[in-house]
Amino acid sequence: MISSEYTRELCARDAQTKILMLVIDGLGGLPHPESGRSELETANLPNLDRLAAAGSCGLISPLGGGFTPGSGPAHLALFGYDPWKSEIGRGALSALGLGVDFRPGDVASRLNFCTVDSAGNVTDRRAGRIPTEKGRALCDLLSAVDIPDVEVSVAAEMEYRAGVVFRGEGLSDGVGDSDPQGTGIPPRPLVAHGPESQRMVEVANEFLAQTREILADQSPANMVLMRGFGRYPELAQFDDVYGLRALGIAGYPMYRGVAGAVGMDTVEVNWDMDSECALYEERFADYDFVYMHVKKTDSAGEDGDFDRKVTLLEEVDSYVPRLLALKPDVVVVTGDHSTPSIMRSHSWHPVPTLVHSAFSLADGAQHFSERGCQLGSLGVMPSSALMSYVLAHAQRLDKFGA
Amino acid sequence: MISSEYTRELCARDAQTKILMLVIDGLGGLPHPESGRSELETANLPNLDRLAAAGSCGLISPLGGGFTPGSGPAHLALFGYDPWKSEIGRGALSALGLGVDFRPGDVASRLNFCTVDSAGNVTDRRAGRIPTEKGRALCDLLSAVDIPDVEVSVAAEMEYRAGVVFRGEGLSDGVGDSDPQGTGIPPRPLVAHGPESQRMVEVANEFLAQTREILADQSPANMVLMRGFGRYPELAQFDDVYGLRALGIAGYPMYRGVAGAVGMDTVEVNWDMDSECALYEERFADYDFVYMHVKKTDSAGEDGDFDRKVTLLEEVDSYVPRLLALKPDVVVVTGDHSTPSIMRSHSWHPVPTLVHSAFSLADGAQHFSERGCQLGSLGVMPSSALMSYVLAHAQRLDKFGA
Repeated sequence: MISSEYTRELCARDAQTKILMLVIDGLGGLPHPESGRSELETANLPNLDRLAAAGSCGLISPLGGGFTPGSGPAHLALFGYDPWKSEIGRGALSALGLGVDFRPGDVASRLNFCTVDSAGNVTDRRAGRIPTEKGRALCDLLSAVDIPDVEVSVAAEMEYRAGVVFRGEGLSDGVGDSDPQGTGIPPRPLVAHGPESQRMVEVANEFLAQTREILADQSPANMVLMRGFGRYPELAQFDDVYGLRALGIAGYPMYRGVAGAVGMDTVEVNWDMDSECALYEERFADYDFVYMHVKKTDSAGEDGDFDRKVTLLEEVDSYVPRLLALKPDVVVVTGDHSTPSIMRSHSWHPVPTLVHSAFSLADGAQHFSERGCQLGSLGVMPSSALMSYVLAHAQRLDKFGA
Repeated sequence: MISSEYTRELCARDAQTKILMLVIDGLGGLPHPESGRSELETANLPNLDRLAAAGSCGLISPLGGGFTPGSGPAHLALFGYDPWKSEIGRGALSALGLGVDFRPGDVASRLNFCTVDSAGNVTDRRAGRIPTEKGRALCDLLSAVDIPDVEVSVAAEMEYRAGVVFRGEGLSDGVGDSDPQGTGIPPRPLVAHGPESQRMVEVANEFLAQTREILADQSPANMVLMRGFGRYPELAQFDDVYGLRALGIAGYPMYRGVAGAVGMDTVEVNWDMDSECALYEERFADYDFVYMHVKKTDSAGEDGDFDRKVTLLEEVDSYVPRLLALKPDVVVVTGDHSTPSIMRSHSWHPVPTLVHSAFSLADGAQHFSERGCQLGSLGVMPSSALMSYVLAHAQRLDKFGA
C-alpha cells in the first residue's frame, strides 16, 4: 500500500520538527484467563492512557495476516521497510547485536562453543552451556586467529553463543552451516552454495582449523560450530529515505545493531529506562528522530510472567512525563510485535499504537491497550505504513500531485 | 502483502490442531429498506453471536475495492490463493461443478443446448430453456460420441446448460467460442488461438459434427453451442502449501470441485446441513482442516428473498453446537462473498468473519453481522489473508526471521 519510494520523494527535508518513537518490545498481549483482561488492560497507565485519549490510535500488523515476526523483520517494518523483502539473515542480526565493528561487505556467522571428542565427533553442541564470562574468555583467546588478507572479529553473546565477523575481498554468505544438529557425529563440512562462496569457505575452514588448535586444551568448550552465515544488510539509510537525523537508544545490543543498519546513530547504554532516558535528554537536541527501545516487557512475556509484564508496563508509563518534558512534536508509542504472556512467545496479534501530535485526532480510544486502540481511527495498518503516517504528523511529507 | 510462498515455508507441519472453516455462501447482506437491518442483523443467531463475542472478528474482502467475485475466485481467495492470478476458467469451473471426472491435462467447455434451422442458423440460443431432465436425457444420448484417442464426458447442468470434458494427448484450451451471441446466424467456427490449440479445434469440431447427427431429430434442442474452453486448474495443493490434510464438505458439486482442485478430499453428500454435519462427524478425526459449505443462503439472496435468507441463517446457527461438539481448535465462520437480497446478486461488500481459538481476543463484536464484525480487531482484510491468520491460531505457522 505504502511505497517507500514515494516517501523518499515526498520527504520535506527542511522541517524542524522532532519525533520520538518509543518501542515497547512485545507490547501486545492477550487476556489473562481469570480476569479476562490483557497485560495492558490490567496495568495502571495514567500517562499512556492520557496520550492515547488525546492522540490517534490503532493497531499495527508487522507482517500481515497471521504471520509472527522475529525482532529483525518486526523492527524493519516499524522503520518503514518491507519486512518480507528486507530480511536480515540470522548471522547478520546476531552480529549486529554483538557490538562488533560490522560493515557493508562483511560476512558474519553465529558461533556455538561445543565439545568434541578425540575422534572429532560432537558430544555436546552447547559445551554444557558454559557461563557468559567463560564464553568471553574463549573469545579473547580466539582473537589470536590470523588469516592473511582477512580481518577476523570474534565476540561473545550469551552463554555458549558468540559471533564472528570476516572482512576482506571476495567474501560471500552463501555457505551452509557446520552445526550437525546432533551428537556422536562430526561437524558438517562447510559447503559453498555457489562458486562465488568458495573463498568464504576457505577462509572459514582456516578459522575453524586455527580455532581447533587454540581451544584444544579447553574443557568442555574445545571447538565451535558455525551457522547462519550472513552479509551486512545493505538497507536504504534513514537520512536518505526520510531526511531524518536519527538516534537509536537501545540497551540491548541487537536493537542498536538494527538501528545502525538503517542509518541511525547509536550509543552504548544500559538497558534500564533510567539510563535510556538520560541518554535521550542528553542527545535530544541533536536529532530529528529518536527511537527508544524497551526490552524487558518482551522478556516477561516470553517467560509467561503476566504480572511482571504488567509491572514493567507501569514502569514504562512512569517515565512518559520525563520523555514529554522535552516536547517532541510527535510522540509515537508502539511495539515491534505482540508477546502475550499466555503464549510465552512472539505472536501475530497486531500491536497497540498511539500517535500524538498537534494534528492528531482524539479519536475515541480512552485506554492504551489492544481493545482500547481498536477504537481509534487508524484501524489495523501494516507496521511498515506507520513511518509515513508519523512523518505526516511531523509535517515532513509533501503533498503528492497538484 | 501476504505471500503464499512464505506461508508454505513457515508452515509448522507437526501441529496436531484441527480447523473448521464454515463457509456460508453469499453471507453478507444489506439492510432491508423498511427495518434498516440486514439479513444477519434480523436473524436470531444466539450461537454465532456467542462465538463472535468470544472470538476475533472482522470483514474480509474477496477481491479488494469494489470488485464482485464469482464463486471460483471467491473460494480461491478464502483458501489463501491470489484470486486474480489463480483464476479458474469458466469452462473449468463449470466442469468442476458437474461432478464428472476432470483431471489435470483435461480441457472442458460449457455447452448450451440450442435450436438451429435447416440452414444451420441458430434460432434459439437456449433451446426454449428446456427443463433440466430433458438436458440430462440429451447428455445421455451424447455419450455415444466416439473420437479416436480422446475420452469425452458430457454432463448436464441446469436447464439448457451442460458441460463436456475432453481427455487426450495434445489438447489445449486456447479456443474461441462457437456461440454466435445472436440468432439468425450460424454458430461461429471454432478458432484456435495458436498452433498448440489446433488439435483441440479438430477434436471439438468432430464432437460438434457427431452431436449434430445425434441430435438431428430432437426438438427444440437439436444442436449445442460451445463456450469457455478451460483446462483443469493446476493449483498448489493444500497439503503441500499448508501441510494440512483437508476435507471439503459441500453438497453442491461445484464447491466440491473447487475443494478438490486445491487438494482437498471430497465426498458426495446431500446439500442440506444435516447431511453435511453427519459427514463432518464421521470424518473429522481423519483431517486437520474441514471446509464446510452452505449453499442455500446465496440462492435466497440471488432470489431477492430476504426472509428466506434470514430463516436459512437461523438454520445454520442451530447447527453450530453440533459443529462445536467435536472441539475443533480453531473455528472460522465466514462467507465466500456477499449476496445482499436487495441486490439479488453477488456483491463486493466485505464479508463478516469470526475466528475463534484459545488465542483469539474477544474484541468487542457482540453480534455476528456486517456492522457487528466491523467492531472487531481484524479490520477489513483481504480474503486471501485469512488462511495464514487461521493457521496462526492453529499454531501452524512458524516465526519469520530472527
